Amino acid sequence: MGYSGSGYILVSRGSRAVESRRLAHTRLQAHEEVPYDLLAWWDKLYISVQPSRRPVTLLDEARKGTTPEIEEVAKAEGVDAERLRRSVAKGRTVIPRNVAGRARPLGIGEGLRVKVNANVGSSKDRASLEDEVRKAKVAVEVGAHTVMDLSTGGDIDAIRRAIIEALDVPIGTVPIYQAGVQAARESTIVEMTPEDMLGGIEAHARDGVDFVTVHCGITRQSVERLQRQGRVTGVVSRGGSFLVAWILHNDQENPLYSQFDQLLDIAREHDITLSLGDGLRPGSLADATDRAQIQEMLILGELVERCWDAGVQVMVEGPGHIPIHEIEANVRMQKAVCKGAPFYVLGPIVTDLAPGYDHITGAIGGALAAWAGADYLCYVTPTEHIGLPGVEDVREGVVASLIAAHAADLTRGIDADRDLAMAEARKALDWDRMFDLSLDSRKAREMRAACNPEEEDACSMCGDLCALRMVEQALDRKGD
Amino acid sequence: MGYSGSGYILVSRGSRAVESRRLAHTRLQAHEEVPYDLLAWWDKLYISVQPSRRPVTLLDEARKGTTPEIEEVAKAEGVDAERLRRSVAKGRTVIPRNVAGRARPLGIGEGLRVKVNANVGSSKDRASLEDEVRKAKVAVEVGAHTVMDLSTGGDIDAIRRAIIEALDVPIGTVPIYQAGVQAARESTIVEMTPEDMLGGIEAHARDGVDFVTVHCGITRQSVERLQRQGRVTGVVSRGGSFLVAWILHNDQENPLYSQFDQLLDIAREHDITLSLGDGLRPGSLADATDRAQIQEMLILGELVERCWDAGVQVMVEGPGHIPIHEIEANVRMQKAVCKGAPFYVLGPIVTDLAPGYDHITGAIGGALAAWAGADYLCYVTPTEHIGLPGVEDVREGVVASLIAAHAADLTRGIDADRDLAMAEARKALDWDRMFDLSLDSRKAREMRAACNPEEEDACSMCGDLCALRMVEQALDRKGD
Repeated sequence: MGYSGSGYILVSRGSRAVESRRLAHTRLQAHEEVPYDLLAWWDKLYISVQPSRRPVTLLDEARKGTTPEIEEVAKAEGVDAERLRRSVAKGRTVIPRNVAGRARPLGIGEGLRVKVNANVGSSKDRASLEDEVRKAKVAVEVGAHTVMDLSTGGDIDAIRRAIIEALDVPIGTVPIYQAGVQAARESTIVEMTPEDMLGGIEAHARDGVDFVTVHCGITRQSVERLQRQGRVTGVVSRGGSFLVAWILHNDQENPLYSQFDQLLDIAREHDITLSLGDGLRPGSLADATDRAQIQEMLILGELVERCWDAGVQVMVEGPGHIPIHEIEANVRMQKAVCKGAPFYVLGPIVTDLAPGYDHITGAIGGALAAWAGADYLCYVTPTEHIGLPGVEDVREGVVASLIAAHAADLTRGIDADRDLAMAEARKALDWDRMFDLSLDSRKAREMRAACNPEEEDACSMCGDLCALRMVEQALDRKGD
Repeated sequence: MGYSGSGYILVSRGSRAVESRRLAHTRLQAHEEVPYDLLAWWDKLYISVQPSRRPVTLLDEARKGTTPEIEEVAKAEGVDAERLRRSVAKGRTVIPRNVAGRARPLGIGEGLRVKVNANVGSSKDRASLEDEVRKAKVAVEVGAHTVMDLSTGGDIDAIRRAIIEALDVPIGTVPIYQAGVQAARESTIVEMTPEDMLGGIEAHARDGVDFVTVHCGITRQSVERLQRQGRVTGVVSRGGSFLVAWILHNDQENPLYSQFDQLLDIAREHDITLSLGDGLRPGSLADATDRAQIQEMLILGELVERCWDAGVQVMVEGPGHIPIHEIEANVRMQKAVCKGAPFYVLGPIVTDLAPGYDHITGAIGGALAAWAGADYLCYVTPTEHIGLPGVEDVREGVVASLIAAHAADLTRGIDADRDLAMAEARKALDWDRMFDLSLDSRKAREMRAACNPEEEDACSMCGDLCALRMVEQALDRKGD
């Protein structure tokens, strides 16, 4: 060992590590023997050969002791590393990170900042690789913590790889989309084979994605409950709809459920985190918190325990469309049923009446959900329910979700110093500092330039009738 | 009596009403004698002479029996009229309506839909009457229930009158702004006289405004508590800052507090509703729910009872900047301390970090506040903390607040049928119906046109992978 620079190196079985390192699926302590030959890209620890024994996952490791990933997350979040390690070991926090090790470690779970995901992705009609990479980059620039590539059009593999290449945040995908699209290109979606589904997941994992949404809770049982339930808006999850249709057409169990052990093998192999999808999430307030939704969650709760038994990190996805007064119940129920696994919610949006403004309906629901304990918010853009978002919609969606996440963080005292700094800048009428502290500095600066106040140190809301200045002056005079 | 058409008529003392009518300040039952001579504009009941006895307010009337205003509000809200009458009589609901009777009756209070106010108004630098009237009209077109004119620049009287003339919703003002601006034009704000302040309120009432914000809770006591408190952002209410400065400069009690009985006389005379302003509301999360804020609320609670004793309708204004976890406490405390008087909140915004997006931070706080019991939301526009809003900002601000109000209404089962109708339209992929049901139809239509989907009955989010259609088809086939 002891190479400098970067390049492929052959690490021979029996050689000894000169320092503690995570190589391929194996953590090596200093002076420990390398247990098998492996070819590694020294700088990035990119592994091009499979190890010859069962891999060790980050969850396996966390159960034994701390890891560099845990240390890095603890530092970024300002929390105690040992406490975080225990949380990861218990599955209450995840650090989604493919064994390829591209992504900066990011923690999602109890006691940490609430995280925000931005979805991008092509469709059949809008299939530009450049556009989707640009959206993904903008999302991260504005502050998204992760990006999911939901592409269904054009060269799906190329788009995914380009996004992975372009970013250092955790990347997620929904592999069933691509499997479905490919099946549809050849025959029909419902003729996907189990191998198509599992193979698609493995292909994404090999490309380095850090987490995948898998709709394993769509089972014959939950579909039956769905049919008995009766719904206004049926199934609105795309992946969910593929699998409901597949089950009904083939009169067979969902392979992602019946072959869950194989899915776990893939997840272990690449150390990807499973995000158990809520394919039966409600598509309207009228369907919120119904028996089909809860049935699926019960199944997901069982699968969470199977993930943990297999040493695979897991989080659970949630709705969707929920009226304000049912949000806390949804979050607490998920936390109880799924034994504290991180909860990843889409929105939730709190009314169906606001197409064009669903980043706002989603921010209201997201703030409430995160306050109640949801750990991770999937953004909603202004074009939700209307069409695919453009770059500006992505920006608006990310900021709206960051507002929700931060507002919830404040309830736990996290990052209150940022608001205090803004308050002090406002008091001082220090506009540059205000902009620097803003969640979206660019927009705030542009708006102020457009408002063009006459008095440089005030703003055009009050102009020379600035309340802050008036009272300050009155108190100053009083103090003279 | 018994005139037809319209025009000025002299109604002589001793003549008898042929039907029940509200004339000037007096309700006449059919066949009852007119108690004094008065000159009335028959159609609009515009009164150009003062009656010769103490007026009867809507609150006085509600304590005795129902009124046309109560009947109209009950019908619009779909609530029981007698129950509403009792609520108005107890002061738990207000129907702000100048005796001139221009505004369509609107109820604000318990059990009714949450209402939204839009602020407009000129400043020294932007003083176009046409612009402000246009903003006010757009606000109402989009769905604002009331408009407040906060003008401080140009011909303030003309702008106010033009807005009153242009709209049939209740109009509010903050008369101290104009009094302060006029004092500043002649000398300084702190040299306003008590007559300037009370005279300004009377002038606005004579012009027909339906409610006025009066900062009567800024007293020597609350200013003292403010000074002991120490704050990061001091006083951010403009009217509040005028009065804090006035008290400190003149070393005298706030005339709006010490001469509150005169204020009540004006309010009775014109039957305007008092909106007790929260001049010491926090201007940052760091100052939220502090002793100065609560001290002012205690004083406002006392003044609420004095309003009721005088037969004057009253509501109470509230913050401002509050972290999510303190919103419910703020609302419930106000409701308890102010004996159920309607609560009118500004936002509240839930983080200081989002200039450019404060319609969203305000929608989160507004939804929570309204869920907890706030009755009336003052909108916040995207330009809050940056500058005066333009027309598009007004539109965005109104819609964001309507979302918050409606989301809270849904928690009480109010208007859930609207969301159900939208869900059914979505299921049917009936785009025209979706747009018709949208809070902002225009924006939704524009966005969809921009997204330009290939398949007319789907949307560009999923295109031919539409989940709704896929499951519907699978279930249909299954049912064959």
